[in-house]
Amino acid sequence: MDLNADLGEGFGHWNLGDDDALLTVVTSANVACGFHAGDAGIMRQVCAAAAARKVVIGAQVGYRDLAGFGRRRIDYELGQLCDELIYQVGALQALATAEGTTVRYLKPHGALYHQADQAPAIVEAAEVVKLPIYCAPESVLATASGDAGVPVIFEGFADRAYRADGTLLPRGKPGAVIGDTEEVVARALLLAVDQRVIALDGTVVPHNVDSICLHGDTPGAVTLARSVRAALEGAGVPLRAAVA
Amino acid sequence: MDLNADLGEGFGHWNLGDDDALLTVVTSANVACGFHAGDAGIMRQVCAAAAARKVVIGAQVGYRDLAGFGRRRIDYELGQLCDELIYQVGALQALATAEGTTVRYLKPHGALYHQADQAPAIVEAAEVVKLPIYCAPESVLATASGDAGVPVIFEGFADRAYRADGTLLPRGKPGAVIGDTEEVVARALLLAVDQRVIALDGTVVPHNVDSICLHGDTPGAVTLARSVRAALEGAGVPLRAAVA
Amino acid sequence: MDLNADLGEGFGHWNLGDDDALLTVVTSANVACGFHAGDAGIMRQVCAAAAARKVVIGAQVGYRDLAGFGRRRIDYELGQLCDELIYQVGALQALATAEGTTVRYLKPHGALYHQADQAPAIVEAAEVVKLPIYCAPESVLATASGDAGVPVIFEGFADRAYRADGTLLPRGKPGAVIGDTEEVVARALLLAVDQRVIALDGTVVPHNVDSICLHGDTPGAVTLARSVRAALEGAGVPLRAAVA
Amino acid sequence: MDLNADLGEGFGHWNLGDDDALLTVVTSANVACGFHAGDAGIMRQVCAAAAARKVVIGAQVGYRDLAGFGRRRIDYELGQLCDELIYQVGALQALATAEGTTVRYLKPHGALYHQADQAPAIVEAAEVVKLPIYCAPESVLATASGDAGVPVIFEGFADRAYRADGTLLPRGKPGAVIGDTEEVVARALLLAVDQRVIALDGTVVPHNVDSICLHGDTPGAVTLARSVRAALEGAGVPLRAAVA
Repeated sequence: MDLNADLGEGFGHWNLGDDDALLTVVTSANVACGFHAGDAGIMRQVCAAAAARKVVIGAQVGYRDLAGFGRRRIDYELGQLCDELIYQVGALQALATAEGTTVRYLKPHGALYHQADQAPAIVEAAEVVKLPIYCAPESVLATASGDAGVPVIFEGFADRAYRADGTLLPRGKPGAVIGDTEEVVARALLLAVDQRVIALDGTVVPHNVDSICLHGDTPGAVTLARSVRAALEGAGVPLRAAVA
Repeated sequence: MDLNADLGEGFGHWNLGDDDALLTVVTSANVACGFHAGDAGIMRQVCAAAAARKVVIGAQVGYRDLAGFGRRRIDYELGQLCDELIYQVGALQALATAEGTTVRYLKPHGALYHQADQAPAIVEAAEVVKLPIYCAPESVLATASGDAGVPVIFEGFADRAYRADGTLLPRGKPGAVIGDTEEVVARALLLAVDQRVIALDGTVVPHNVDSICLHGDTPGAVTLARSVRAALEGAGVPLRAAVA
Repeated sequence: MDLNADLGEGFGHWNLGDDDALLTVVTSANVACGFHAGDAGIMRQVCAAAAARKVVIGAQVGYRDLAGFGRRRIDYELGQLCDELIYQVGALQALATAEGTTVRYLKPHGALYHQADQAPAIVEAAEVVKLPIYCAPESVLATASGDAGVPVIFEGFADRAYRADGTLLPRGKPGAVIGDTEEVVARALLLAVDQRVIALDGTVVPHNVDSICLHGDTPGAVTLARSVRAALEGAGVPLRAAVA
Repeated sequence: MDLNADLGEGFGHWNLGDDDALLTVVTSANVACGFHAGDAGIMRQVCAAAAARKVVIGAQVGYRDLAGFGRRRIDYELGQLCDELIYQVGALQALATAEGTTVRYLKPHGALYHQADQAPAIVEAAEVVKLPIYCAPESVLATASGDAGVPVIFEGFADRAYRADGTLLPRGKPGAVIGDTEEVVARALLLAVDQRVIALDGTVVPHNVDSICLHGDTPGAVTLARSVRAALEGAGVPLRAAVA
């Protein structure tokens, strides 16, 4: 099982999350590329730290919207969106090269992750940069990637509520984010060992994922991420990056 | 002799210059990379058009300052500046690759071009991305590049006034920009054929350059650029990109 | 009849439209406030020029999206949107005061103009800044303004196609923008004299407006705007700002 | 004695400092205006909270440089800088009005605070918006304000090292920032009670200030600010806003 998390989400003078702590937990680091968060200096630092820990890096690409942190949909013209995603990946790649590592995947951030009609722009960008995409099983993005022959890494969320159809309850809905450590750890084990998730209505849904997405933007989140890793290790789940 | 010009300097809804016309004149296109001008869509279009015309492209890197068009000095911390330059080159490289071409050089834009104390950041970025730098002979940037073993392309300006020490009269000083077509053409020929420039005080200064920088941000500028090219061709000066 | 147009839509080094020419045509100037276009220097210049010509100014408020020129919907949280509109009006007001004039109305720009679900944020901002809103008759924004007791100025478009229900055909649809001078002038006269518009299907639709919106972002547009003004004057239509 | 601090210095998703805690300590709040930090939503929140606590607000104006937090000099054209400062004050004023309060002063932020050659732009902006300026005694800004008849509020820093000429040791120099609580409190008392500061070389320098600037961007800073206030209250120093 792969563990991934968003890193490098500060900007200029502003910090967000504890990148160093997360790098001791994850096997894959989604590095923000400067459009919704991150800047060149932060990106390079994360690349250096990830390289030192042999953590694989990917491009966490997003809307051009620092003020909205990429979390609100923007009605992009698809060609423009595709070009901006390629731009972000290239920028990260150059900084990764400077630190002796390489961008291995692409993961859309925030609202972009969920916009079915914008999935073609992500897939086209992935084809251009020749990288696989992290996405949710059952998602339009997964289908579009498959149709285009773009490899995908399926990821699940131990701290997010699912609906019975295997899709996420949108952030913002009551109960969408699960904060209780024991529950999150239990859900991570269920995902990693049994490839299942328990939906809001109690249904046990098969959920075959290659990676579990963790969060680290609060002190509590880092502790939680550590607990998940420890539990998976304790259960004998081998942890390694999804992209070899 | 190489002819270079700045291209792709619009932003979003705003246009600047006539890129298509300039691409019929120059042998090397300095593509703005989104920090002082340009955006991902424009960058990709310029790469495509340049590739179609077999014009070599370079990264026209600048300060993060759309509001100031990169023309006013910013007191950057050098490491941050270097990282931003690498970021810009990488972004352009990814879009160039998408259009079947490659970034072949780096040219600092605007105020950055002239800041002696920031030259080390440019040189360090060039070392990381393994590209030569366009710069003025006699400049601190030229010296710093030489010291680091970074290849340089020397460029001269047919439409700018020079001082007797071979340096440019700063933009903004009276007489700094020469608008008369005949005079600019004569100066271009002097540069290309005799490797000389006539300084403000009348001194004839040896000026050994590989490239002449043209401008295209006004309709008149494009006409002027065409006249320079025609004159050089008429004089039998072979025109080809400085970076093979 | 009032004639209004968008002014001050350049940014930094980039120009857009011919503000000086438009100020000889319009009675009300919608000044871009720096979020989708415009900057403090441009805003102040437009205020000064408008004041000199006794043209009334209003705040042309938009999304925080220079890259998209405010023309693509952004899924704002309404409170944040409202605050940003207030911010923009205040900024313009301070610069207007510096030039001896005053912001007299608020006009939403681009995509914001048309988003029914975001109309409450515009109305709330207008209540806070105590200004009337320019909007289309039959629009959700008009209704929401009316419900809140916020005064409105109804505007029509002589160069845009209408549907039989009195609403605009969206920009981007074929035929949405009318370029023929004679036709635009005829439609302006029909609007100003008869308070009617001819819809796409030939229906003559009553359209009671206080203002006609003109455009000036191309040389042709300015000529067209001049023709409209001349025709209205020729027909004896009194031209004066909608907000006294 | 007035106590002032910078507030509202987050941006979008990013937080900085503990505004609520600082509002229990200061008598004047310098509200960031969106150019180097802050956004419309944050500005309005700070205005509301300050109004509720009867803390006076001022406009903390800065360079257009979110990436640099306004801390690095930008070579502005002075007219453009002046216009941007007016823009910022107006934006804050509109949001302050929405919350029943008023902008009472202007305080330049970061590098702008210290640029002697840019002082005229600050003074001109202050004249336009008719507000007094917070500045350091012995500063060029103080002199320029005085020459123009713009009222000033002199402020001192209990946590910053001074030189024997009464000027601050620049941030970044060793020892420039004093972290020890006891020392800072002692220096605050010396400033408030005796109007003196002890310079780096031990000289006791008269320093007649109306306000002490506190910081709150770290948890320790807030504790320190509280200690300063408590010490001043303990010493019977009346605490009230400098602008009545």
